[in-house]
Amino acid sequence: MAELTFDKLQGDNFTVAHIGKWADLDRYAFQHPKLPTPHPGKLFLKKELKLTGMEVSLNKLPPGTQMPFYHKHQENEELYLFIKGTGQFQIDSQIVDVREGSVIRVGCNGVRIWRNNSSEDLYFVVIQAKAQSFAGEDISDGIGVEGPVEWPDPEK
Amino acid sequence: MAELTFDKLQGDNFTVAHIGKWADLDRYAFQHPKLPTPHPGKLFLKKELKLTGMEVSLNKLPPGTQMPFYHKHQENEELYLFIKGTGQFQIDSQIVDVREGSVIRVGCNGVRIWRNNSSEDLYFVVIQAKAQSFAGEDISDGIGVEGPVEWPDPEK
Repeated sequence: MAELTFDKLQGDNFTVAHIGKWADLDRYAFQHPKLPTPHPGKLFLKKELKLTGMEVSLNKLPPGTQMPFYHKHQENEELYLFIKGTGQFQIDSQIVDVREGSVIRVGCNGVRIWRNNSSEDLYFVVIQAKAQSFAGEDISDGIGVEGPVEWPDPEK
Repeated sequence: MAELTFDKLQGDNFTVAHIGKWADLDRYAFQHPKLPTPHPGKLFLKKELKLTGMEVSLNKLPPGTQMPFYHKHQENEELYLFIKGTGQFQIDSQIVDVREGSVIRVGCNGVRIWRNNSSEDLYFVVIQAKAQSFAGEDISDGIGVEGPVEWPDPEK
């Protein structure tokens, strides 16, 4: 598996990485412990960014390929965000055609699988967070910070 | 604000919505309680999808526009995923040029703001989850489900 060579920047309260173009996602590969070979086009972000509240993967799935098995979860809710391309998602035997702008919440017990049955690459994001862990909604957790907004070149 | 007219599908363990093309995100608008007019191009998903572990927004920011104030968070970590276009992100006075594939974790106390200082629309996803709530990483929470994979048209 290729070493990850992000351009990274860290501070007390943040981590930034530039992982590159979606089309080049297959420079990264994930080695699933139950599969014989690494899976190119799947990049997990939690460890790289030091995330503490979620795991997120960025995914590029080539035409004619599919997940080889169904899975569910123990504690985590998942959200699938489809960015580009078309394919199919299956949850509890329900088939859904997915495309740019398809968004799918799956609770722990949902039995899920997906495939790219099209002739173009399928791009999507998968977010995991602990089910029932989130209070509030939209901006209720945010706090405005007083002071004038400053950019180095405000006219640009 | 336009009524949300998603094509939605629900089951015991899932909610699916098709919210449309990224380019059409400004059909949705968010009314921030402290701002005079709705903010087109910002769509929150938690309520619509019945998410319980995260809040997620999909964002389209036009050229030459910016957040009008800094903010931080009380309990939630944020992840910003930049999908398309270019702009700038500021955290604790550090300026970062963002582009397709830029990913930024911001902890609760990070003071953050962003702008689109380019001539094209900027597209990004913002995910909030409770800081320190997530155990494990990558696939450690998943459980394989036995049985043959079945698609209605397996050759397609």
